[in-house]
Amino acid sequence: MWGGRFAEGPSAIMREINASIPFDKALWRQDVVASKAHVAMLVACGIVADGDAKAIVEGLDKVAAEYEASGVPEDWDLEDIHMTTEARLAELIGPVAGRLHTARSRNDQVATDFRLWVRDAIDQLVAGLGGLQRALVARANEHAESIMPGFTHLQTAQPVTLGHHLMAYYEMAARDVSRFADARARLNRCPLGSAALAGTGFPIDREMTAQALGFDGPTDNSLDAVSDRDFALDFLAAASACALHLSRLAEEFVIWASQPFGFVRLPDALSTGSSIMPQKKNPDAAELVRGHAGRIVGCQVSLMVTMKGLPLAYSKDMQDDKPPVFEAAGLLQLCIAAMTGMVEGATFRTERMREAAELGYATATDLADWLVRAADVPFREAHHITGAAVKLAEQRGVALDALALDDLQAIDARIDERVYKALNVEASVAARKSHGGTAPDEVRARVAEARMALGMDE
Amino acid sequence: MWGGRFAEGPSAIMREINASIPFDKALWRQDVVASKAHVAMLVACGIVADGDAKAIVEGLDKVAAEYEASGVPEDWDLEDIHMTTEARLAELIGPVAGRLHTARSRNDQVATDFRLWVRDAIDQLVAGLGGLQRALVARANEHAESIMPGFTHLQTAQPVTLGHHLMAYYEMAARDVSRFADARARLNRCPLGSAALAGTGFPIDREMTAQALGFDGPTDNSLDAVSDRDFALDFLAAASACALHLSRLAEEFVIWASQPFGFVRLPDALSTGSSIMPQKKNPDAAELVRGHAGRIVGCQVSLMVTMKGLPLAYSKDMQDDKPPVFEAAGLLQLCIAAMTGMVEGATFRTERMREAAELGYATATDLADWLVRAADVPFREAHHITGAAVKLAEQRGVALDALALDDLQAIDARIDERVYKALNVEASVAARKSHGGTAPDEVRARVAEARMALGMDE
Amino acid sequence: MWGGRFAEGPSAIMREINASIPFDKALWRQDVVASKAHVAMLVACGIVADGDAKAIVEGLDKVAAEYEASGVPEDWDLEDIHMTTEARLAELIGPVAGRLHTARSRNDQVATDFRLWVRDAIDQLVAGLGGLQRALVARANEHAESIMPGFTHLQTAQPVTLGHHLMAYYEMAARDVSRFADARARLNRCPLGSAALAGTGFPIDREMTAQALGFDGPTDNSLDAVSDRDFALDFLAAASACALHLSRLAEEFVIWASQPFGFVRLPDALSTGSSIMPQKKNPDAAELVRGHAGRIVGCQVSLMVTMKGLPLAYSKDMQDDKPPVFEAAGLLQLCIAAMTGMVEGATFRTERMREAAELGYATATDLADWLVRAADVPFREAHHITGAAVKLAEQRGVALDALALDDLQAIDARIDERVYKALNVEASVAARKSHGGTAPDEVRARVAEARMALGMDE
Amino acid sequence: MWGGRFAEGPSAIMREINASIPFDKALWRQDVVASKAHVAMLVACGIVADGDAKAIVEGLDKVAAEYEASGVPEDWDLEDIHMTTEARLAELIGPVAGRLHTARSRNDQVATDFRLWVRDAIDQLVAGLGGLQRALVARANEHAESIMPGFTHLQTAQPVTLGHHLMAYYEMAARDVSRFADARARLNRCPLGSAALAGTGFPIDREMTAQALGFDGPTDNSLDAVSDRDFALDFLAAASACALHLSRLAEEFVIWASQPFGFVRLPDALSTGSSIMPQKKNPDAAELVRGHAGRIVGCQVSLMVTMKGLPLAYSKDMQDDKPPVFEAAGLLQLCIAAMTGMVEGATFRTERMREAAELGYATATDLADWLVRAADVPFREAHHITGAAVKLAEQRGVALDALALDDLQAIDARIDERVYKALNVEASVAARKSHGGTAPDEVRARVAEARMALGMDE
Repeated sequence: MWGGRFAEGPSAIMREINASIPFDKALWRQDVVASKAHVAMLVACGIVADGDAKAIVEGLDKVAAEYEASGVPEDWDLEDIHMTTEARLAELIGPVAGRLHTARSRNDQVATDFRLWVRDAIDQLVAGLGGLQRALVARANEHAESIMPGFTHLQTAQPVTLGHHLMAYYEMAARDVSRFADARARLNRCPLGSAALAGTGFPIDREMTAQALGFDGPTDNSLDAVSDRDFALDFLAAASACALHLSRLAEEFVIWASQPFGFVRLPDALSTGSSIMPQKKNPDAAELVRGHAGRIVGCQVSLMVTMKGLPLAYSKDMQDDKPPVFEAAGLLQLCIAAMTGMVEGATFRTERMREAAELGYATATDLADWLVRAADVPFREAHHITGAAVKLAEQRGVALDALALDDLQAIDARIDERVYKALNVEASVAARKSHGGTAPDEVRARVAEARMALGMDE
Repeated sequence: MWGGRFAEGPSAIMREINASIPFDKALWRQDVVASKAHVAMLVACGIVADGDAKAIVEGLDKVAAEYEASGVPEDWDLEDIHMTTEARLAELIGPVAGRLHTARSRNDQVATDFRLWVRDAIDQLVAGLGGLQRALVARANEHAESIMPGFTHLQTAQPVTLGHHLMAYYEMAARDVSRFADARARLNRCPLGSAALAGTGFPIDREMTAQALGFDGPTDNSLDAVSDRDFALDFLAAASACALHLSRLAEEFVIWASQPFGFVRLPDALSTGSSIMPQKKNPDAAELVRGHAGRIVGCQVSLMVTMKGLPLAYSKDMQDDKPPVFEAAGLLQLCIAAMTGMVEGATFRTERMREAAELGYATATDLADWLVRAADVPFREAHHITGAAVKLAEQRGVALDALALDDLQAIDARIDERVYKALNVEASVAARKSHGGTAPDEVRARVAEARMALGMDE
Repeated sequence: MWGGRFAEGPSAIMREINASIPFDKALWRQDVVASKAHVAMLVACGIVADGDAKAIVEGLDKVAAEYEASGVPEDWDLEDIHMTTEARLAELIGPVAGRLHTARSRNDQVATDFRLWVRDAIDQLVAGLGGLQRALVARANEHAESIMPGFTHLQTAQPVTLGHHLMAYYEMAARDVSRFADARARLNRCPLGSAALAGTGFPIDREMTAQALGFDGPTDNSLDAVSDRDFALDFLAAASACALHLSRLAEEFVIWASQPFGFVRLPDALSTGSSIMPQKKNPDAAELVRGHAGRIVGCQVSLMVTMKGLPLAYSKDMQDDKPPVFEAAGLLQLCIAAMTGMVEGATFRTERMREAAELGYATATDLADWLVRAADVPFREAHHITGAAVKLAEQRGVALDALALDDLQAIDARIDERVYKALNVEASVAARKSHGGTAPDEVRARVAEARMALGMDE
Repeated sequence: MWGGRFAEGPSAIMREINASIPFDKALWRQDVVASKAHVAMLVACGIVADGDAKAIVEGLDKVAAEYEASGVPEDWDLEDIHMTTEARLAELIGPVAGRLHTARSRNDQVATDFRLWVRDAIDQLVAGLGGLQRALVARANEHAESIMPGFTHLQTAQPVTLGHHLMAYYEMAARDVSRFADARARLNRCPLGSAALAGTGFPIDREMTAQALGFDGPTDNSLDAVSDRDFALDFLAAASACALHLSRLAEEFVIWASQPFGFVRLPDALSTGSSIMPQKKNPDAAELVRGHAGRIVGCQVSLMVTMKGLPLAYSKDMQDDKPPVFEAAGLLQLCIAAMTGMVEGATFRTERMREAAELGYATATDLADWLVRAADVPFREAHHITGAAVKLAEQRGVALDALALDDLQAIDARIDERVYKALNVEASVAARKSHGGTAPDEVRARVAEARMALGMDE
């Protein structure tokens, strides 16, 4: 596999372990933009002459056009995207290219480029989450009254509506958006001008570059600015949290699509068959979303381990910051898109869901609550009475509301015929009108707020 | 070790694996407060009679007084803090205690208690971080002009000031505070009233309990409210990020305290000796801070793994949310306190730092920058010229500014005697006046802002 | 929460962060045993006088008896179990106690104690795994012919037997045993006598202490011996792997116990009820096993992060090795016991399983295989023909073997009436006689081998 | 970044999330080899005709030749390496290609291919570790007498030899080799013939394919065989452990190469310069080895999270097993190669090391030990006496052996002039002759054993 891979000796190893161009070429757009902002500032501050700057900017545009057309060349000797671009610039415009690196270092340059990349990734992911939220809200609206079993411990607990269930994921996605927004706000300071670690003696204007690149201002400590990867860790923490949410929704789709549940038919476009079992329709996309959560968590752990115990300022270990961030961003974008497709395209088998909701004595709590309300029994006592009723129904193999009034009254004399109104699943669901509860009206109220928040009514 | 531990069979195993009281008793204050808010609301909404509520509140106060005086009893059969408290309440006030559990479930109860606990922990940690920041700022002010080598790759890079270096950690702590604040804002919605999973049919007022408990409002989806542990994950992510920062500072103290560096003498109170080597003075506290970072990251991973792929709503796996949060909070509080003590008590050996700053050709960049500024050489060319000068100095075994002008001019004729002013460490440091740079005036400006932000001047 | 916790200043912090006695007291038995072996060797080598050694051994026995009777006292000033024991010894026998620490250091002492503890934990866990294997084999034997749906992607794939399914976990447990055995073999070298880091000048006999403590021999490099925590990492890796297996079995129990599946009734002793829903019977133990897997993985990550990048030799960070190991060992022992109870006590609802196996066209592969065997159709083509048959059956809403021969022949003329023998679930299962396949005879053969390996027939 | 990436809708998402060919093409050699073994067995068992098998084998050889020459084409619609190869085979030899998939499934096929790949990776890594061990042993031999400070807590503790220090890493590498060997032994069972999950009805000979592919035999349970990824987890655990060892060695190189230490000059071929600081020579390779440890640990965590809680048998989540394994294997191979180059090429500055060893009262333990041996003082008392001597020396600012005999005797009258022989670093090192100690003779004995074990003397 690696036979003779390093026959050339240490220098071959070094070229391979040291070169980041195979992955950091993903930063090329950010690198060009940041260089242009830097040179514009150098001119404004009188550090580089107008003509030189013009040549540099035109050269950078040419390099960018080449990259756009043919990709970024991977010459390991040029190590990274910064040297690759500057070397090509020098070929195109000559030694004047060397003025671009005035008052900066690769340390602040990569910190700036990477922040810009992460900021873009956040914006894309937040847009993707918006799409997922819209899909959830649309389906929730459609199913505000569709009754399904609500589970705790995967045991039938109380009837809920499918709309309510889907809106739980809307809430999670909303927190994900807020977490990415927090990460974005915290990262949005510009390290450019921190130079290698100590700042620079050139009379630069850091506010100017910060503003040109859309940052809220420059970072306040140059040592910190080149050593800090909090923005990447914040991104990965937000990505993990989001991936965990998606893994939960994916788990539900996998379970719901199983034959014994049969709650959902997944869209053909997001399922696959088997190479050996012709009847199979597998929820591959959901499973991969669940699996990808593992990889995204792994990416986060990776960078935490890498950063642990590093002294200031920049150390080369920090070059290992990019692969996990790039990997996590790509996987998460894919996961969000897949779950959006799944939510939009799923056929919910509401009749099966409703049947299941009627099994498992899901309205037992309603009996207990009725005893509290109608007969002023303390809840704990009501809970015990209900337990006896459930036991009897189980022995008879019938539903709770199929027990005769005599039987119920034999358990507790305070029960009367009004109780039956509380024991069907529609009544159960309709009753739970507390804020955030599963009653259809509540679900619709939440859907309306969500549509407003998402601008869906415009 | 575990010989015969489970001789009693499954029920003994179940009691042990199921009981959370050994750790969730830490929630007792929050549990009592939330119960009192709940019962006050039940009265206001006409669900529980005044007299009953009064008995419950007085009973709860008695239970709390008992816990305060003698600790929370650990009866595994009562499973958790909620049942422990309710059972004791029933002993004290009789069956009316059973009315307390109306319109709630342990699922929303524990979600509420735990949020309150995490919120308190955040407040404590943020206070601790404030103390650390004040210590950093005070020492930074003291050492705004103390010169030390700035390192990249742990190689001498450019001279910086110790004040500047310490202020880098001020920035990290500021981000930690902001991260905890974000976590706090996101958690500050009240799950109480979500009941088991579906909301409740009792006419409760969730705004009222939310307000009474200091929340910004109730959560919006009951299924989400009882299944959500984002607040714990956010807390752990913030704790990990903070621990990683502290591990970096700890690493520096360990390296700086080594004999070859000798940059710092650690406070006796935070060092230990050896059982076999009488001369040793070990930086144990710093090492433990570094080690604890590992455990805190482990806590975060633990909860991420636990939450992955859980279907809605509450599953018992989520009982494993508390041990990592409690452990991480305790360890981090200790780490912050230890590092604060270390920063306050360290004796910085500034003469050793300064000597080290003069080794390693730390002002080479200043020569290159001088060439750009004074002789308009493109930076890349200046970099090459400086490389040649360093090489010559190395061969002669002297510092850069000990090279004769003739020698320098032999390398590049554009160099003149003004260059020497740029080559000493004071000049180097003083020159880096860019925003966030290491120049003493810049450091003092940042210190002043920090003092203002921390209210240190009041 | 921590109000005023550190009012006493740095020394209070130091006592708390530095003291390991709250957790390392768990090592007391190992510490006493190792000290006795050490002193016996010192006598044999003429380093300590007979009488002194006798006093020391008697003193240690007294200390041990005290610990056994009243627990280990936690005096933070004595830092750890080693100093706690030695200090008590000195109280009991006077200054001669000071001879015990000749030719050793706490660094090799704790490495020895901890290895002994981990070795004991491995032995306990392996015994526990043996119990689980026996339970699996017993139930597998009972259900060698019970047909259930085999799932891939949680979709019905092919019929299998429950016995076969349970034996899959026997295989996992067998690998777990082998992994612990490997860890045990690798740890079984004795660090005692490595002293602080460099070995000792006393003429000790390391073979003698190694043998006395059941090790295969002494470690070969003193620097490594005091810096190495591979044995703890190996233990944690084995524990994580085992916990992941148990989490899979737990997941199956949770899914199987859900109402839509209804494949299993869990033992009452390992289930719980709900505080609000009287009908609930929750698979708490299984869920906690799944949750504990998260914590055990977290423990492993914790120690990996802690050890990363530590220079030689002992650093205090390594004191953070014990809490995760102790926690993981305790949790895993509990998980194994719980799953053993669950396997032993579960009521498998084989009639529900069999019904489910007949849904989902689980014998479609058998049709394809029949075409290959009986009609010499290439498998890929057979797969396509079968796909058409499944489609037709789906349209008709019937099982595969309910399609008329005419219908099947219309799809492919090579099909004849013999095919029906292949399409029922018994035939399908019976046919899979390849080594390791699901045919009852194969399952019984594996069970017989397992019973032999476990000594169950003796 | 991902603008319009999924404009084509769900099917475009599905193709991207589902396709594993971008990474699993790395398995092509294993896939071809396993297919050839499979078809040979099918012929031997009379399941496929000789002529068909010959066509298949020739076709597979052609496909392999194409892959070797031009790489594996990435057609996402063909999903994975298995379908890619079979599809190309069908193009080359027609429908008879369809006979290859008889009595197997992609589930057992990928399990087999991946095991073969991991086995090859283990063999490569073990070879690499052998190279590292040889380098360590060679340098240790060279420096068996070179004195350096031994550190604990990064504080000067006792003098050791550089050879001894390097041999500590030899021990770690030996454990790594043993861990990989254990993983290899446990993985070496062949899943082929387990088919989709239940085994097969074709009369196959699993022993035959197992033997042909170098396995010790077939796996014993088909459900387990297709669901098991222990071999990948074992590999990743071994890789993490190894990476953590390398991270420790890397940390030492980074610290030793710092100016204040100055213990080592790193080989030019494994260092880099700075884009802004012309004097810099950075230990990039060592830093990247340390950083890569983070990524390798992240890979391990990734797969643990992915596998947690998966029910049997194969789920698509398990497709996420390969990227972390491939990444970890590649990174680790590179790390081993880099550290080997570093060990071989480093210039150890033994004079600086020796000077450092004489600072810090590194022979204080020798004074204490001398008191025990020569004056029969209990160790604890000797430790106190030595503490007083160190304190005096510190006050005077001199080394221990520069204290006058009068001064020492004033501290304890039992000290006489023989003590001076124990207080120089050579004597200290030479004295530590206990097994595994740092005495040059001991180091040479260990080196000799290691050379034997590695076959270096042949």
